[in-house]
Formats: sequence, structure tokens, C-alpha cells
Amino acid sequence: MSEIENLLREDLRGQSPYGAPQLDVPVQLNTNENAFAIPEDVAAVVAEFIGRELRGLNRYPDRDAVALRTDLAAYLGHGLTADHVWAANGSNEILQQLLQAFGGPGRTVLGFMPSYSMHPLLARGTGTAFVDAGREDDYTLSPAYVRAAIEEHDPGLVFLVSPNNPTGTALAPEVVDAAYAAARGIVVIDEAYAEFARDPHATALSRLEGRPRLVVTRTMSKAFAFAGARVGYLAADPELVEKLLLVRLPYHLSSITQAAARGALACAPQLQAEVDELKHQRDRIVKNLRAKGLPVADSDANFVLVGGLRDAAAVWRAILAEGVLIRDVGLPGRLRITAGTEEETTALLDAFDAAMARHPEDFATPAERTEAQRGESQ
Amino acid sequence: MSEIENLLREDLRGQSPYGAPQLDVPVQLNTNENAFAIPEDVAAVVAEFIGRELRGLNRYPDRDAVALRTDLAAYLGHGLTADHVWAANGSNEILQQLLQAFGGPGRTVLGFMPSYSMHPLLARGTGTAFVDAGREDDYTLSPAYVRAAIEEHDPGLVFLVSPNNPTGTALAPEVVDAAYAAARGIVVIDEAYAEFARDPHATALSRLEGRPRLVVTRTMSKAFAFAGARVGYLAADPELVEKLLLVRLPYHLSSITQAAARGALACAPQLQAEVDELKHQRDRIVKNLRAKGLPVADSDANFVLVGGLRDAAAVWRAILAEGVLIRDVGLPGRLRITAGTEEETTALLDAFDAAMARHPEDFATPAERTEAQRGESQ
Repeated sequence: MSEIENLLREDLRGQSPYGAPQLDVPVQLNTNENAFAIPEDVAAVVAEFIGRELRGLNRYPDRDAVALRTDLAAYLGHGLTADHVWAANGSNEILQQLLQAFGGPGRTVLGFMPSYSMHPLLARGTGTAFVDAGREDDYTLSPAYVRAAIEEHDPGLVFLVSPNNPTGTALAPEVVDAAYAAARGIVVIDEAYAEFARDPHATALSRLEGRPRLVVTRTMSKAFAFAGARVGYLAADPELVEKLLLVRLPYHLSSITQAAARGALACAPQLQAEVDELKHQRDRIVKNLRAKGLPVADSDANFVLVGGLRDAAAVWRAILAEGVLIRDVGLPGRLRITAGTEEETTALLDAFDAAMARHPEDFATPAERTEAQRGESQ
Repeated sequence: MSEIENLLREDLRGQSPYGAPQLDVPVQLNTNENAFAIPEDVAAVVAEFIGRELRGLNRYPDRDAVALRTDLAAYLGHGLTADHVWAANGSNEILQQLLQAFGGPGRTVLGFMPSYSMHPLLARGTGTAFVDAGREDDYTLSPAYVRAAIEEHDPGLVFLVSPNNPTGTALAPEVVDAAYAAARGIVVIDEAYAEFARDPHATALSRLEGRPRLVVTRTMSKAFAFAGARVGYLAADPELVEKLLLVRLPYHLSSITQAAARGALACAPQLQAEVDELKHQRDRIVKNLRAKGLPVADSDANFVLVGGLRDAAAVWRAILAEGVLIRDVGLPGRLRITAGTEEETTALLDAFDAAMARHPEDFATPAERTEAQRGESQ
């Protein structure tokens, strides 16, 4: 072992860094990015907001980001104010701060995998034990299942993802209520993809009132096409928000990031039009793959999880050979596909046709598909 | 205790968030910011670099920030390459990542206070025990002092600050060498203010070769007048840099931040001219306060630490009453003053004159000053 490896924290030794493969492929549908470039007029507004900050960059930013939090609260609605909102460099940093404040050594966070793959890594990075309660056979979560898991483990934090990644399905409000009622710790609903939900009212924001331990995390990466700008945020009780100031790095959010986010928020209606188009393409993928006989759960996100694959890795390679990059999330017989533009979606569906024609042996037989679909219906 | 307070990590209960008081005062010389606004032509370059990224913000940033690291390595010189450099949202995040990788529960970081006040807080946030070895009576550090402290505590990491904050003095190269030779763990030299050193060659960058456990951290906040942009970085052995990828949040550094930093780096010569002017104003403060009979150590930073105050808090208030905000860093009889523009520096020196005339009782007597100065000379 090298001198440096030997000095590394024990639980990091021999690990590899997180990261989706970034391949140079014409159609990239692998990281759930928003397929649309920022429209020219929105980019102009963002540039104007940033431009106002540049001369003054010699000064530290507003470390409490009050103006941005005010705008985020107005965007969220539900009677929220700046005091209910906190912002950071991506929702990863938001989750890290929650774990630093309410988790840490000797404490536990309960998750339900398969779900957002960063949750266990964020737990590790903060010394919090991650307990995976798994999911029901069809990857859904019922109130009873969640309640039983929480009662068994009594965690300091619970991480639920809605819509879930990689399955795409939003949680029923009863699941959130059951989790909150069963838990003694912080209950975090990770709503990174909330704007893509079929029912936009199905957000846990409506459950915040009177639930001081409930946290809803969001991101501008997806609905605002702002993955490159790194803006995550949360809504919660003001007392809980106040506690995060104890663990945030001072001046964690740059003046430029704060301004860029405010510019994009000012353009929310234009960006919402692209969300609507992505929802349309997502539903087109669901319908089309089902027509090919492949089982796909309805999706509330900007991606779908397709099943019915006998050899997921082989299908992933076959789709890649057609110039389309999707994501092998490690679930047997399944692959995750981000909804793209109309052209990208057409390329994807054509790639599936080609793969099925050329490599039928990599796909389940009709009988096997019917069997798989039975467990999938909802 | 409230429900939320009760769920908070034990060591955070009852704590207050870090933060310098931000008061609305005409002359702000309290947070060691660069006094100069970004010049118009530099702002234009930064805007141009950022502008190229805006349409593509729907995509995640380069999570390894290779182009920025390449530019930073070229700026640093000393034969460094992108593989030797790592960048993050401010040097606070750099230090946090070092603690996450090489510190954490059951491990110790050794510091020499008074020094950068965030070091103990970053240790707490990562569960690393912070041991304060203190300093010699005149706040300096000799090779023997540092060696003895390291041998006594055998820490996982050592944090040394050069030039030190709040004392302003750079470490002699022999101190760095002694620390490295004595330590078995990672030795971090925090060089946030390096560009302001009287001897610009007195950087630990020249000691990196052949010392795989040595890390030099830097920031663009000070010399590049970029505090609002949040860009910190480090130089170290490539193997050590590689380990930080295990704890960094994926995509931690936004496309906009990476571009803004590259724009400012392209303007390094223009910004260096302002550094030279700030060094001139700093030396003017040193000379002028000494002429008033106040002991001030020579400074290698953009601030000075003035002594000879019988009641530092009262002097701080008296200076504030004159419209100048400086920093009470909690050292008895001393205050820290950031060098400003020529006008700000004049206002500061006038404020000291006024305070000494109006409140002579808050300043040490000439005899007391001589006594204090004796311990200060170097």
C-alpha cells in the first residue's frame, strides 16, 4: 500500500470515485439531464443577472442567500417564505448538510434502494451509517412497508425519493404521512424530479405545515435545465433551516450562482414549456416501448425504467452501438432512459427496434415479458 | 429543548453559526477582502467566459474541472500540471475534502492558534478532533516549536497557515520542512494570502517535489479579488489529488464557476497590479501605526495585526464610530485591519488618530507599548 493510500480513511481505501460514464456519443440519455439547451432569451436574462455581480466579486457573497431564498420560496408557493428555504451547490450539498447536522457517527439514515445512488455515498462521506430497507418486489413502496422499516431501524434520518430514481414513480401522499408518523427523526423527501410528475400537486410541500421534522429537497438541475449551474434547495420548518447554518461552509454559495439562479427563476414560465415537452416525450417512450412488448412503469420523472431484458448489459451495448447512450443502473433486466428531444427520442426508439431485430436473444420472450409485467402493474 | 434541537448532533447544540459581523459602514476593512472592484476590462473577459457556458447549462459540468486545473497549474508554475491541482468552492471546501479523506472520527488535525478561525469549525463539521498547539509568546512559530508539537500529538493532519491569519506573517521554509519531517500524516500549508508576501518566492510550492504528504492550499478570493466567486484550490502529489475524488460531491464545481475562474486567470497580470497597490497600502499602515507608537508585526498578507491596545473592544468601537469597520479577532490588546484602497487606508489612519485623541485611555501607555513591542520584534 502506498504512503497516501495508507493515510486515507479506512472506509475509503480501494474505492473508486462516483460517476456515470461520460462517453462521446451523439445522443446522451444517461444522466437525466434536461435535453433542452437554455433558450437564447433565458440565457440573456441569466447573463444580465450575473453581469450585475461581476464588478463586486471582490466582496464575499451574501452568506445567507436571502434574495435567492425569497425567489425560491415564491416559486414553490404553498405559503413558504425565505425562512423556510435553504440553498446550496446542488441538492447533493443540501443532503450532505442535512447529514452533517442530523446524522454523523453513531447515527443512521434509512433509505429504500434502488434509489438515488448518491444517498449511500453521502452517508459514507459524513460518517452516517446507511441502512437499506429495500423495496417491495415491484420496486414500489406502500405505507405499511415504509412504516415497518422505520419502526424496525428507528433511524436519525429517513431518505425517500419522489419521483424515485431510477424507477420514475412518485410516492403516494399516504407514504409520506406514514413515514413521518412512524419516524422520530428527520424525514427527507428528495423531489429532484417533482416538476415532471403527472400530478403536479403530488408534492410533499403540501405536508410541511405542522411537520417540523419534514424536509423536501429540490434542484434546479432538471426542470430549470440548470445542471451545470449547481443549485439545489430545500423547504422545511424555519427552525430546522436555521440549524443548517451551523454546518454550511461560510459563503458556500457564490454571488454568481445566486444571481444565475435568480435569473433562471425569473424565466420559470419559458422553462416550464420545455418540461411539458419532455413529459410528452417521456410518455411517448413509455407507450412505444410497451407497444414493443417491453414492461415500463408509468413515470413521473424525465426518465423511464424499461424492463423485460434478458441481458441488460448486452442491450445497453446494442443501444450504444446505435449512437444512443442510456444508463445501466445495475438492476437485472432493466435499463434507465432519460427522455430527450423529439429527435433524440426517435433515435432512441429506432435504436431499440434495431437492437431487438439484431439481438432478439438479449430480450425476454413474450411469455417471460408477460410474467415480468404482472409484477410491474400499478 | 425543541424537537429539532433535540435531533441535532450533540456537539452542535447551543452553537451559533460562524460569521463576521456584516455592518453597513462606509469603509469595510474587516474580512480581508480585496479592496478593489473587478476592473471593467477584467469583468468583460469573465462575462465572455461565462457567456460561452450559459446555453449548455442543461448539461452537468466537467466534474473533474480539467481545463480549470490546467490553467491553475500554469498560473502556479513550479512545474505543476493539472494532475497536481484540485479546485473547489472556496478553500473551505478544499480543506473540508482533505479532512473527509484523511481525517474524520478517531483522527486528529493539529493547528496552531491563533490562526484561521475556520480550521476548528471544519474539523468539527467532519468529526475530526482539533488539537490546538498554540504559538510562541509573540505568535511566531519556530521549527523546534512545530516539531515538538507534531511529535507530541502525532496527528493525521497538520494545518499551518502562511502567511498566517490574523498575525500576517509568512512561515520560514525551515518551518515547513521541519513539520513535514516530523509528521507521519498530511501536512497542509494554507497559503490563502501568498500573493501578498514580501518575498513572493517564499511559498511551500517549491517544497512539493518529493513530498507526497505535503499540500499547499490557495484561493482566488484575495489576490484575484474573487471572494464572491468562491474558488479555492490546492497543489499536491497527483496520488493525493486522486483520493479527493472519493469524497468530493459529484459535479461540485459549476460550469459557471469554472469558466469565471478561467476568465480571471486569463487576466492575472491586470489583477496583480492591484495586489501591488494593496501591498503598498499595507506597508503604509504598518509604518504609520508604528509612527503612532503602536506595535505592528511586518505583514506578508493584505492585512495587519496591530497591538498596544489596552482595550481592543473599545478601540474597535471608536474606529467604527469614525465609519471604519475592522476586526476584533479576540486577541487581547490587538485588532486586525485589512489593507484598503488609498482613500480607505487614509480614512483608517485618520480614524486611529481620532480614536487616540479622544480615548487615550483605551491605548497602552508608551512604557507598556515598549514592553509589548519587545516581544513582537522579528
